[in-house]
Amino acid sequence: MKKIYIIGVGLIGGSLVLDIKKGNPNVTIYGVDNNNKHLSKALNLKIIDKVSTMSTVNEANLVILAVPVDASVKLLPQLLDAISDDALVVDVGSTKQDICKVVENHPKRRNFLAMHPIAGTEFSGPEAAHLGLFKNKTNIICEVEKTGIKLQEKALELFTSIGMRMRYMNPKAHDKHIAYVSHLSHISSFMLGKTVIEKEKNERDVFDMAGSGFASTVRLAKSSPEMWTPIFKQNKINVIETLEEYILNLTVFKKKMQNDDFKGIFNDMENTNRIKIILKGIE
Amino acid sequence: MKKIYIIGVGLIGGSLVLDIKKGNPNVTIYGVDNNNKHLSKALNLKIIDKVSTMSTVNEANLVILAVPVDASVKLLPQLLDAISDDALVVDVGSTKQDICKVVENHPKRRNFLAMHPIAGTEFSGPEAAHLGLFKNKTNIICEVEKTGIKLQEKALELFTSIGMRMRYMNPKAHDKHIAYVSHLSHISSFMLGKTVIEKEKNERDVFDMAGSGFASTVRLAKSSPEMWTPIFKQNKINVIETLEEYILNLTVFKKKMQNDDFKGIFNDMENTNRIKIILKGIE
Repeated sequence: MKKIYIIGVGLIGGSLVLDIKKGNPNVTIYGVDNNNKHLSKALNLKIIDKVSTMSTVNEANLVILAVPVDASVKLLPQLLDAISDDALVVDVGSTKQDICKVVENHPKRRNFLAMHPIAGTEFSGPEAAHLGLFKNKTNIICEVEKTGIKLQEKALELFTSIGMRMRYMNPKAHDKHIAYVSHLSHISSFMLGKTVIEKEKNERDVFDMAGSGFASTVRLAKSSPEMWTPIFKQNKINVIETLEEYILNLTVFKKKMQNDDFKGIFNDMENTNRIKIILKGIE
Repeated sequence: MKKIYIIGVGLIGGSLVLDIKKGNPNVTIYGVDNNNKHLSKALNLKIIDKVSTMSTVNEANLVILAVPVDASVKLLPQLLDAISDDALVVDVGSTKQDICKVVENHPKRRNFLAMHPIAGTEFSGPEAAHLGLFKNKTNIICEVEKTGIKLQEKALELFTSIGMRMRYMNPKAHDKHIAYVSHLSHISSFMLGKTVIEKEKNERDVFDMAGSGFASTVRLAKSSPEMWTPIFKQNKINVIETLEEYILNLTVFKKKMQNDDFKGIFNDMENTNRIKIILKGIE
């Protein structure tokens, strides 16, 4: 593996190639991005070695597709058309059904591995990229059987070497589960931020009275709309389902308060305290 | 100031006396708690110097009331009855209307200062107490004019010395604002945890797919139901108002998704990104 192309030099793509480069100092990282400022920054920050374009992607041994999920779905078939027969393309998107669907009949389907590294922060762009982001993180791989054996092995070795543990899942199950543990969290956080901002016209009040609890709960409301809008679009049905259940739970909680059923509210909170056990190992 | 009584040796009370003791090594800290295990732990952890009871509170120079807010409302009048004429009682509860109301006509009202230090973690009990919790945190003080001038000065000096900045507010405004920036966050987090736990019968799936974003958003769902149920009860009207607005925002978001109004969703998220500026300085 000598030439790695990274399409999209943001938080995830940038962090991936930083880790890969550390363990494989002889590879050359080629950066492709439609944002020239990001390319310059990535070059200055030594995330990439060279600025490149899609037109030379046929030279790549590995292509990492790390752009918003609507762009991924458009670019992936073109990438597979262009790459050499023994190259591997991986994507890192937060939705997996549409991307798997768009190449299901592609003659080079075996050159593609669909994955979702469960890692990130609320920041974006190459300045947010950093070494070690993927250490002890889960990498969900979908339809692994559709990827060529040797390319599977290559990917497994590479992503294990940067500290990830692999987990295999079909795209439908991935998109359903991730709606609960990731997509819904982002909406609950964005709408919490919206509710408080709307109410508190005087921002100084918010600033003075908000503590670390609010900061933690609203952290994801800093996330990039460019990245998240296409995720919600692609995972629309699952996300709406999670939203309906969340709204129902909130409405029941509100009704319990209105009915002075504070025993019920106590029990709900006590049962939910089980999240302590579930979260151990994530934080 | 020689004798400080701490009623409730949990996270907030324990952390307060740790900080106070550090700056005032000659004071003796007397711990009162109806949980004997907490008292033993607090003694072992050197949070308190002596175990005591309410019956000797007349000897105290300062009494810090740090119990759940329903217990505070019951205990405060008894404490004011019992203390000496030049002693100060402060409470640290997350609601301020009921506590101020219950002593508004008490003959020793001037010996009480109502305050709410905006600090804490999702943990509870004396083991959660730690030095430095209040550094650079806001301490909201209500009805300061009803506290005797010398006792005001004493409190200001003491709480400034442990790193807090004071802010003055009436109890009604406090309870309304804090519902938005603290109480609602707790409910959004508890209901997020509930929604995900209910859906994911197989906890292993949650664990494997959840990342740091979920962990952050659901962190407050680890909070103590013993502490939070009485807060929601006392601040019922304000909390229901915030819940209604939150549920409405979530419902509108869901409808936008159903109508494929992803431009609207993008705009909502982009506008809410302003939270970045608001949060600077809190985290």
